[in-house]
Amino acid sequence: MVKMIMHGCNGAMGQVISKIVEEDENITIAAGIDVNDTIQNSYPVFPSLEACTVEADVIVDFASAKAVNGLLSYCSEKRIPVVVCTTGLSEEQIQLVEETSRQVAVLRSANMSLGINLLLKLVKEAAEVLAESGFDIEILEKHHNKKVDAPSGTALALADSINEAMDNHYHYQYDRSQTREKRQKDEIGIQAIRGGSIVGEHDVIFAGQDEVITFQHTAYSKAIFAKGAVSAAKFLAGKEPGLYTMADVIG
Amino acid sequence: MVKMIMHGCNGAMGQVISKIVEEDENITIAAGIDVNDTIQNSYPVFPSLEACTVEADVIVDFASAKAVNGLLSYCSEKRIPVVVCTTGLSEEQIQLVEETSRQVAVLRSANMSLGINLLLKLVKEAAEVLAESGFDIEILEKHHNKKVDAPSGTALALADSINEAMDNHYHYQYDRSQTREKRQKDEIGIQAIRGGSIVGEHDVIFAGQDEVITFQHTAYSKAIFAKGAVSAAKFLAGKEPGLYTMADVIG
Amino acid sequence: MVKMIMHGCNGAMGQVISKIVEEDENITIAAGIDVNDTIQNSYPVFPSLEACTVEADVIVDFASAKAVNGLLSYCSEKRIPVVVCTTGLSEEQIQLVEETSRQVAVLRSANMSLGINLLLKLVKEAAEVLAESGFDIEILEKHHNKKVDAPSGTALALADSINEAMDNHYHYQYDRSQTREKRQKDEIGIQAIRGGSIVGEHDVIFAGQDEVITFQHTAYSKAIFAKGAVSAAKFLAGKEPGLYTMADVIG
Amino acid sequence: MVKMIMHGCNGAMGQVISKIVEEDENITIAAGIDVNDTIQNSYPVFPSLEACTVEADVIVDFASAKAVNGLLSYCSEKRIPVVVCTTGLSEEQIQLVEETSRQVAVLRSANMSLGINLLLKLVKEAAEVLAESGFDIEILEKHHNKKVDAPSGTALALADSINEAMDNHYHYQYDRSQTREKRQKDEIGIQAIRGGSIVGEHDVIFAGQDEVITFQHTAYSKAIFAKGAVSAAKFLAGKEPGLYTMADVIG
Repeated sequence: MVKMIMHGCNGAMGQVISKIVEEDENITIAAGIDVNDTIQNSYPVFPSLEACTVEADVIVDFASAKAVNGLLSYCSEKRIPVVVCTTGLSEEQIQLVEETSRQVAVLRSANMSLGINLLLKLVKEAAEVLAESGFDIEILEKHHNKKVDAPSGTALALADSINEAMDNHYHYQYDRSQTREKRQKDEIGIQAIRGGSIVGEHDVIFAGQDEVITFQHTAYSKAIFAKGAVSAAKFLAGKEPGLYTMADVIG
Repeated sequence: MVKMIMHGCNGAMGQVISKIVEEDENITIAAGIDVNDTIQNSYPVFPSLEACTVEADVIVDFASAKAVNGLLSYCSEKRIPVVVCTTGLSEEQIQLVEETSRQVAVLRSANMSLGINLLLKLVKEAAEVLAESGFDIEILEKHHNKKVDAPSGTALALADSINEAMDNHYHYQYDRSQTREKRQKDEIGIQAIRGGSIVGEHDVIFAGQDEVITFQHTAYSKAIFAKGAVSAAKFLAGKEPGLYTMADVIG
Repeated sequence: MVKMIMHGCNGAMGQVISKIVEEDENITIAAGIDVNDTIQNSYPVFPSLEACTVEADVIVDFASAKAVNGLLSYCSEKRIPVVVCTTGLSEEQIQLVEETSRQVAVLRSANMSLGINLLLKLVKEAAEVLAESGFDIEILEKHHNKKVDAPSGTALALADSINEAMDNHYHYQYDRSQTREKRQKDEIGIQAIRGGSIVGEHDVIFAGQDEVITFQHTAYSKAIFAKGAVSAAKFLAGKEPGLYTMADVIG
Repeated sequence: MVKMIMHGCNGAMGQVISKIVEEDENITIAAGIDVNDTIQNSYPVFPSLEACTVEADVIVDFASAKAVNGLLSYCSEKRIPVVVCTTGLSEEQIQLVEETSRQVAVLRSANMSLGINLLLKLVKEAAEVLAESGFDIEILEKHHNKKVDAPSGTALALADSINEAMDNHYHYQYDRSQTREKRQKDEIGIQAIRGGSIVGEHDVIFAGQDEVITFQHTAYSKAIFAKGAVSAAKFLAGKEPGLYTMADVIG
């Protein structure tokens, strides 16, 4: 049974993770850390890591970027592996993550969802097989009508993952309405649908002569990031120092 | 049993129609018209309408635009209803179609597929119900990698059909990658996927709060246009003079 | 601006409805009714309809079956239209709903989702057009792994809606693995997928020669039933006595 | 440039392969073998392998099961690698294939489509990652209304591929309509849709908490088997003796 500390336990993601851990027999929350103490949890909560008197095998962090420096130095000193899920780190902080990973196991990924991280790997394998057989690659993503960026970061990550595996010979095509031209072999079309409250859907489409293979990921809530964090925690406990990503969790 | 004349019987579409009619108990080909006489058919073939000695209830035309004038004057004179499937008519010819429809029943549509014509009608009904409940409308189409125009004419027809029903208050959005902005209420996003040999797929997506309704049409071959023509022929036989479209066939 | 009373305002669905109404300019909650008084709402809450001193144009009910009798007699006496969303009514209660509808407008539906109710109508229209052209009809539904009944009530309602429009000549086929036989023309296949936490997806598939039309409804949360209730309330305010369903709301 | 002999060149699949090879710069048909000599090909055709005076690097076979024995002994003697695509081999013939593979490279697969063979591999990898995170696995297949067996052989192959990777602890569930029970963890649901002229669609669905990953393969024509055969031929030319499958081609 892995014992974890939930750093930022009373935030929205911290609470979602708490519920997921409760139903998992292989991991338990030994303590939570949060300055906010208005929520009743099934585990003891401390206002800071320094105040925490409980020992653990791994820390999961979903607090705030400004708390990351303290977190990393604590983990480095105590030799506790840490899963950093907080986003919006500065360049300095990203470098600090790398430095810390020489002392202790650190995992950090752009997208914590198990499903998306699996697809990042599988579409690469698929591209290596299918592209040389003449399959065209297209990516489609759908999100809610309040999202301001298009295409989504995850759509771009999927395209980049394929492109890296293929010597970066693809360019990305976002709009075909302005020209009257046949599709080029070295392009990946990336299209964005926006509407309603769609949480997030990503299709990677390999279209060949008379057959089409589609890899589709549909998210129903942000809980999938919490679930990925718990998988990462179970994976990281007991690991050697080093910088890990969700790709390592998937194996 | 409806008796039809197949105008252009030895062309690709004429042959597909011949096969479809053979398996239909309610219609038969009484004669074919074609200058090309290299194909053996189960019905007599004449080099021209004038040479044809067989009577029929309706003519289906899949010949060439330049033969349309002769076809229309023949149908007008003989009072035989005609389904004009040939595309690429000139403005004068389109006017001639209208004039002919005062003497005899004439049916002409941009897209002969039963399925697409049904969707043109149903998405209009859906928009009237869903748009006022705040659903966003998006259209996605997928075609083979040799298609030069994007979005497809059918995707635009679907958007136009919705727009007409909604006082034309929508504008069309083809590319969201160039701005960082939330989706606007009065836009219909239209996205085009290109790859492999995809015959044609059209999705009309109504995305609301926590629910999405998608109307999807997938074409597996151009035979669907032939099938639509046969349905139109059965519908048109015996009809009063007038200008009909596939929407009338659907009823 | 329609003024509504939320009957059962502090239950899960009552709270979801409260949020939806807050963002709607055309309707407001004038009062809530609930014996539970632990929640702070933006409107006054009374322990019972009898205690309520506020007037309204319509009542929306998402309380409990045992409270329905009192609700109906109140609405009948005060001549306030009522949307009954509570499920599990007894035969006597269903009869009481009908009797009440002679005095006042009453709306009751098996499924309050706007999208599903629209599909119930459109698939009927589609079947009338496509079935006679030889399209086969199949229904697929996907739900979470805790659902004990299969196929879903909504899948059956979709099949029934089509069947009623087609002289009830279809029977339903749930399993094709036990025989080696071609599909029969007079069957509707209904298949159920179970997995994860899928909220609910329904596909009605019309498969013909070389073309397939799919009507797909995806639910992302139970909030869609709340939304349907609000649409129903806006529709019902000011209506003549009678028994209405969501089909009338859609129009 | 690989030189191949097309065994059964004037059959339907032989002709499809001929067209595909014509557009491929890395392989050419040096000769065809067929007793039927009514078709004009761009390469010389011989009535039997014995009569063939042309040398080649590989033979592709899409003839008939009864010609397989002669083919295998010819390849064994001449040391020419052979891709056996003919189906319906007897147990003795399957054993003969294995024996022949000690002398020369032989490739034989249940399904020659590149896409399906890739999925057979990728769903195995996905299952290893996702099943232990609690994802449920379901398979859906859609085929035309004349197919008598259900589920399809390919659907079963996909299930078997996953099952083998997971210590065969899954059983298959074809019908959920007869019981009122929650889904069991150790089952793979396999559902079959039948309608119209659908060539073949297979979905492998991994449904977890709030996310669903779907691997979808859509076939538009049987040409995909031809294409797979050509890929196999290019792969097999020059290979050491041994028994190969499409999984080796994909690598």
